[in-house]
Amino acid sequence: MTAYSALEDRFRKIAVLGDALAMLQWDMATMMPDGGAEARTEQTATLKGIIHELVTAPDMEDLLERAASEVQEPWERANLREMRREWIHAAALPPRLVDALARAESACEMVWREARPAADFARVLPSLRVVLTLVREVAAIKSERLGVSLYDALLDQYEPDGRAAEIDAVFTPLEGFLPGFIAEALEAQSCRPALLETKPPFAVDAQKALGLAMMKTLGFDFHHGRLDVSHHPFCGGTPDDTRITTRYDEGDFASALMGVLHETGHALYEFGLPKGRWRSQPVGRARGMVLHESQSLLMEMQACRTPDFMAFAAPKIREAFGGSGPEWEADNLYRRSIRVGRGFIRVEADEVTYPAHVIIRYRLEKALVEGRMELEDLPAAWTEGYQRLLGVTPPDDRLGCLQDIHWYGGAWGYFPTYTLGAMTAAQLFQAATDAEPGILPGLARGDFTPLLSWLRTNVHAKGSSVSTRDLMAAATGRPLEPAAFEAHLRRRYLGA
Amino acid sequence: MTAYSALEDRFRKIAVLGDALAMLQWDMATMMPDGGAEARTEQTATLKGIIHELVTAPDMEDLLERAASEVQEPWERANLREMRREWIHAAALPPRLVDALARAESACEMVWREARPAADFARVLPSLRVVLTLVREVAAIKSERLGVSLYDALLDQYEPDGRAAEIDAVFTPLEGFLPGFIAEALEAQSCRPALLETKPPFAVDAQKALGLAMMKTLGFDFHHGRLDVSHHPFCGGTPDDTRITTRYDEGDFASALMGVLHETGHALYEFGLPKGRWRSQPVGRARGMVLHESQSLLMEMQACRTPDFMAFAAPKIREAFGGSGPEWEADNLYRRSIRVGRGFIRVEADEVTYPAHVIIRYRLEKALVEGRMELEDLPAAWTEGYQRLLGVTPPDDRLGCLQDIHWYGGAWGYFPTYTLGAMTAAQLFQAATDAEPGILPGLARGDFTPLLSWLRTNVHAKGSSVSTRDLMAAATGRPLEPAAFEAHLRRRYLGA
Repeated sequence: MTAYSALEDRFRKIAVLGDALAMLQWDMATMMPDGGAEARTEQTATLKGIIHELVTAPDMEDLLERAASEVQEPWERANLREMRREWIHAAALPPRLVDALARAESACEMVWREARPAADFARVLPSLRVVLTLVREVAAIKSERLGVSLYDALLDQYEPDGRAAEIDAVFTPLEGFLPGFIAEALEAQSCRPALLETKPPFAVDAQKALGLAMMKTLGFDFHHGRLDVSHHPFCGGTPDDTRITTRYDEGDFASALMGVLHETGHALYEFGLPKGRWRSQPVGRARGMVLHESQSLLMEMQACRTPDFMAFAAPKIREAFGGSGPEWEADNLYRRSIRVGRGFIRVEADEVTYPAHVIIRYRLEKALVEGRMELEDLPAAWTEGYQRLLGVTPPDDRLGCLQDIHWYGGAWGYFPTYTLGAMTAAQLFQAATDAEPGILPGLARGDFTPLLSWLRTNVHAKGSSVSTRDLMAAATGRPLEPAAFEAHLRRRYLGA
Repeated sequence: MTAYSALEDRFRKIAVLGDALAMLQWDMATMMPDGGAEARTEQTATLKGIIHELVTAPDMEDLLERAASEVQEPWERANLREMRREWIHAAALPPRLVDALARAESACEMVWREARPAADFARVLPSLRVVLTLVREVAAIKSERLGVSLYDALLDQYEPDGRAAEIDAVFTPLEGFLPGFIAEALEAQSCRPALLETKPPFAVDAQKALGLAMMKTLGFDFHHGRLDVSHHPFCGGTPDDTRITTRYDEGDFASALMGVLHETGHALYEFGLPKGRWRSQPVGRARGMVLHESQSLLMEMQACRTPDFMAFAAPKIREAFGGSGPEWEADNLYRRSIRVGRGFIRVEADEVTYPAHVIIRYRLEKALVEGRMELEDLPAAWTEGYQRLLGVTPPDDRLGCLQDIHWYGGAWGYFPTYTLGAMTAAQLFQAATDAEPGILPGLARGDFTPLLSWLRTNVHAKGSSVSTRDLMAAATGRPLEPAAFEAHLRRRYLGA
């Protein structure tokens, strides 16, 4: 047996255990009674421990080195590259650092849960300082092992091969574009006819039936997935058994509906990943958070929040809730789905203002990781960013730097993937509709086959065989640029 | 660290992985879309492989031996005894035999799925012969290691320390009792007023709400468990998160209701097992299939299929289905729940005829395992058993020896636990009601606390610290005897 085939065996086992873990985590969020939490935490910790042992086995480095001279076939080479990445991320850190960080994250998260409602940043500052210190230790070690900058080493955990230099190249022009564009979009919005209210309540059963019907329309394969309910919507499970969730609000059917379309985009990516030999290999898995988010936003923002799709969806929505009258017309529903507003809270933001929320966070976390800023200065710098990019002043830290769990829970280097995903979605959708004239007419009659077929070939089936950068170049003919995203915003919000 | 505490650590990990496996199996039966089956099978096989490796680790025998001189405390000694049992069952067999048996079981089960509807025993005979040959190899090896007979070695897999000699001591008198009693019960039944039909359909939602309410009445803890739907009802999950299932028939509300009461009995046993240190140790787990089945049958047959409980339940049942009229009276519902009839199919049998079905299978499987009978002679011997004990002649093998999956799937030595469970339930219930005069009046007002409290102390909290035999002696003052079960049948069916 070659070193490479020994590695394939080992990483197949690692992937299968990861899949088991994903199912247990899905169950925890959707089905598990509260009294099962302690036992479940033991189960997931034990599985994570076994996975960690397998990835960091003493002979792994030797196997990876020997395999390097054995493989020539491009997918095998890419697989080996991704194996090495997993190994570096798992093995680079001394166990005492892994333990200390896990404990610090968990402790800080607990303090944050009290500090946020109290709008008391000072209360969580000491715990956050411990987290950041350890995160910077992690960044230093991984930066050395990966040969990249401190921030890129953290980014690599969520977006393999992601580079801050490339993020800056797209975020800097976007940062220049946004403040003026937000003002223009609000101005244009204020000149349109007033939006009409659809009258609640919207029965949960009807919302669920509508969501399931729309999932089917988009191409969700119910032989390989489910829709359930959880507090925080997500797409979980495995490529063969993808579990998406939503949350129903009887006062607003659109939140669950749009959430389902979003998560269905994630699920379609998972369904379309390579099957067979590569299914349980690193090279066969989703590329990273940028492409994953691009697939959910492509469905939700590019394909579904459109006059074309709303023309198809509006009659189904009316039928689901027994609605009639002008407020149920496609145009009203469409314009309701693209309302713009300046706000303090990222997760409530629309697609125009969302990137501003993200860019603020990206600049701040990068400065903190690189030691160019002190945590004490975070609230003031946060406010300055909101004033500059969004023209609003958060009244307190609850609506400011305490709003997101990410930093308190140890997820540094994650934020930019949201907006990179949105820009990637716009550029992919542009390339797809340019290449396939059947896509837009398809959406108007609820036929997603032309779109899905293009995505399968150009995105999903690539797995992790190429970098996001190379995938984008091949699929769209250019690197990621703000052009397609900005053009999309201009068309949608200014009619330009 | 002592050898014993190393063992506790190791078996805790084994139990936690077994719990993870149980959750994945529950999901497979209740939630999983069909396309997830292949991936799930890989997940469960991988977990089973890891568990097997842990139990059969090269140093396990040495640890078990060293620990023997370290522990004196009774629960630790009992824990060590159960660790040794797990180790013997896992390590005794050469891997090639384990593999061959798994393959033979799976192949035979597939042939059986075609042979059963075709009533074609000859078709499955060659595959069944392979299974039996391998099962006898297993029995021979485990018999040697455990120092017990061939049959007892198989029985030990389901009922630790179970002995055929003790089964014979209770089955032989029961076998003498049954044919005459069945005739008497049928005669008595024919003299009672005719049963009145409750008119279907019974909405699934109403059945579910009724089942949940009854689970609550019996003491099911919804912080530590759930009710869902599966094709074959079962009690799964873990002691901290017990998942029971049922199946709804719109034409018959009683099947799901009685099934839910039955599975709730299993769940209450799991809930009542020792907590804390022993929760994830072999000594803290359920004793075996006999006690497990006794706890489900005690709830279903002893406590709930009674005039007392029906007096409480009938109004709730009426309310659930909007029923009125004499067919919804407690007496009619009670008598419908205890109908007796001679039949061919075990899983459709009532509590009077069920033991006859089981005794027939026990005699046959024991003769086959011990080599006193050939598989070719099974259909004829089956028919002879049914004629002698039940007075009926199965028209074909579909309604005869092809009806149960057990032998074809490799479960030899399992059948007697059903009837041992029924007898154990009767004897425990007798002892409980003798000891606690509050139990029966409690049932009549839907208060299961006195009964559950007695079971907690005398059965559930014992875990696997003592044998079923010793538990019965302590709880009831005698070994298992047919007396309580026969007395129960006489009271219920002859009014004697």
